[in-house]
Amino acid sequence: MDATPRDTLHTLPTPCALLDEARLQRNIGAMQRRLDALGVRLRPHVKTTKCVPVAQAQQRAGSRGITVSTLKEAEQFFAAGERDILYAVGIAPGKLAAVQALREQGCMLTVVLDSPAAAEALAAHTRATGHAFDVMIEVDTDGHRAGVAPEGELLLATAHALHAGGQRLRGVMTHAGASYGCHTPEALQAMAEQERSRCVRAAERLRAAGLPCPEVSVGSTPTALSARHLEGVTEVRAGVYAFHDLVMHGVGVCALDDIAMSVLCEVIGHQRDKGWVLVDAGWMAMSRDRGTQGHAIDWGYGAVCDAAGRVIDGLAMAQANQEHGILERRDGTVDPTLPERLPVGTRLRILPNHACATAAQFGHYEVLREDGSLTRWARFNGW
Amino acid sequence: MDATPRDTLHTLPTPCALLDEARLQRNIGAMQRRLDALGVRLRPHVKTTKCVPVAQAQQRAGSRGITVSTLKEAEQFFAAGERDILYAVGIAPGKLAAVQALREQGCMLTVVLDSPAAAEALAAHTRATGHAFDVMIEVDTDGHRAGVAPEGELLLATAHALHAGGQRLRGVMTHAGASYGCHTPEALQAMAEQERSRCVRAAERLRAAGLPCPEVSVGSTPTALSARHLEGVTEVRAGVYAFHDLVMHGVGVCALDDIAMSVLCEVIGHQRDKGWVLVDAGWMAMSRDRGTQGHAIDWGYGAVCDAAGRVIDGLAMAQANQEHGILERRDGTVDPTLPERLPVGTRLRILPNHACATAAQFGHYEVLREDGSLTRWARFNGW
Repeated sequence: MDATPRDTLHTLPTPCALLDEARLQRNIGAMQRRLDALGVRLRPHVKTTKCVPVAQAQQRAGSRGITVSTLKEAEQFFAAGERDILYAVGIAPGKLAAVQALREQGCMLTVVLDSPAAAEALAAHTRATGHAFDVMIEVDTDGHRAGVAPEGELLLATAHALHAGGQRLRGVMTHAGASYGCHTPEALQAMAEQERSRCVRAAERLRAAGLPCPEVSVGSTPTALSARHLEGVTEVRAGVYAFHDLVMHGVGVCALDDIAMSVLCEVIGHQRDKGWVLVDAGWMAMSRDRGTQGHAIDWGYGAVCDAAGRVIDGLAMAQANQEHGILERRDGTVDPTLPERLPVGTRLRILPNHACATAAQFGHYEVLREDGSLTRWARFNGW
Repeated sequence: MDATPRDTLHTLPTPCALLDEARLQRNIGAMQRRLDALGVRLRPHVKTTKCVPVAQAQQRAGSRGITVSTLKEAEQFFAAGERDILYAVGIAPGKLAAVQALREQGCMLTVVLDSPAAAEALAAHTRATGHAFDVMIEVDTDGHRAGVAPEGELLLATAHALHAGGQRLRGVMTHAGASYGCHTPEALQAMAEQERSRCVRAAERLRAAGLPCPEVSVGSTPTALSARHLEGVTEVRAGVYAFHDLVMHGVGVCALDDIAMSVLCEVIGHQRDKGWVLVDAGWMAMSRDRGTQGHAIDWGYGAVCDAAGRVIDGLAMAQANQEHGILERRDGTVDPTLPERLPVGTRLRILPNHACATAAQFGHYEVLREDGSLTRWARFNGW
């Protein structure tokens, strides 16, 4: 079902991804001001939003270049005019021909890897085609995912393999994903400093070995919003800050009313004895992400707001089927007034646990402009 | 990145949704034969596959009509020639105009509801437009979701409100979603009988009250594959059986090698000390569904197979980031031979927890035909 120019919050087809532009602009401005004050470049990660108008708003605020998580993002944003792109997932050898094709069209696409084996795959490609790559080495600063240790042999072995293979070594990068598990300002500051200092240490070791390392790239939304200084860092990557979500609220880096994207839905029924309100947005709309499961407040599949965006205290989407959401009081009590307060046909907004996952369930955003009018911004999915 | 006609399993862009046509056809045939033997019509739920060639294969095997979970599915399948469609999610009043539009184009679209309030919304629409609807009443047979109790006042109150509003009462329908929580043949048979007997009871009460109730529609894949008889039932709805998945395996209604859809991915790195293999399919490809979390075997985000589809015993996608999957041994031991056995560039297939959720992360299926060739079938997402 498509929206029409005459649509309002009460007639938009449901479920849909509703984007509050005032909150979006506020989030974009706050992050940019923070990194300006810390004296580092912001290279936003577009994996959350996958939306050209959002990236353009980030650029107008002062960001430079973008970070992507898929080659599809690189292709789409390059087609929209962005040339400076970091593909921040370890490069699969099967993707090198597509990376080369983009680079030959003029895209300054940098790839990432973390092993001599991957460096050798690039070298083999370079020997066969004559095409060399811009490469950053991923550093593991929190034991969370990929990357070489900042100390140890693998960092230098990888760098030497890249150098010997004819690649252009652009620097080191890291992502402290473990910051999502922090819940106090002190823990976040400590994680931000760990991310910074270990990545800078890796850069110093490369330089001491006579290898080039112009860039030191770090980042996640929690650490970017918590770092006290970023000495030695040249750029920060962050993405979810543009929308924020209940996980960022649980981590402590945003307020509930900073969350810019919600799922607009409609009440379809009740189970009065159980205190349930059923809506036409289930896990297909919210995603299966249960990111607040281990938090002080477990929001189930989302926090419930009225159509105007005001939180309805105590209510959460406690359960979800594919196209059914079940709203209940978080404290488990049965509120017998819910069917009268939220009758069939009522419109509600559900704030998501994880904006990256929820946004990916939709092909576009219905954008609520600051003047109250609605417009539509496309996003894309897939690889 | 798009596939080309020359692609093989070793060159297809990754991650992608790989569909094994031989397994698909086997699953479709097995369900159809079972329901033929039980003497009921199969109205497949297309919410899992959202793919016209799959629905056509189901129809060739003997299915009649389809079940949908969104109006987008109704619109897409009607455009592809299907006219007999049950929209099996309680109808939101905001969707009535779109339902009417489809019906006026010749789509025999039946809607579902479970309250006098929803029936009154239909009556108001009928008074305003003159258009009446075909309606089934949803019955709650397992306390799982929506629906009126088979006993009690609400069933008859809803039916009378529909009748008074001028709607055409097509019958009763139910879905025993609680069957997903069963893990023995005895529990599944009992749940199938509960679903059948309670829905038939609701139909009998309507008929005893002089109300029409030609159809009694039940179903889920586990109950459809477990029912010993279906007396009084006119049709069964099931969907995930076409693909099957690790949840269905855990419930006990399919073997691992019945699972027809997997995610093809490529190894991008290792964390040798931890026994991790990193691949280019994370939760964006697998979905965040953790449906086997409470099962005897928790597969994390998926079971790992080699490129030919043979299960690699003991390995699972234990963790996932957006575009990174982390494969580990399920028993938590570190296998030091993994980097040599599964080097960077190795292709693997990951079997999903929940086919409905994983398939929805993709815009098409790469179909491995029985002769070993590859083709592509489109699917759609969204609302």
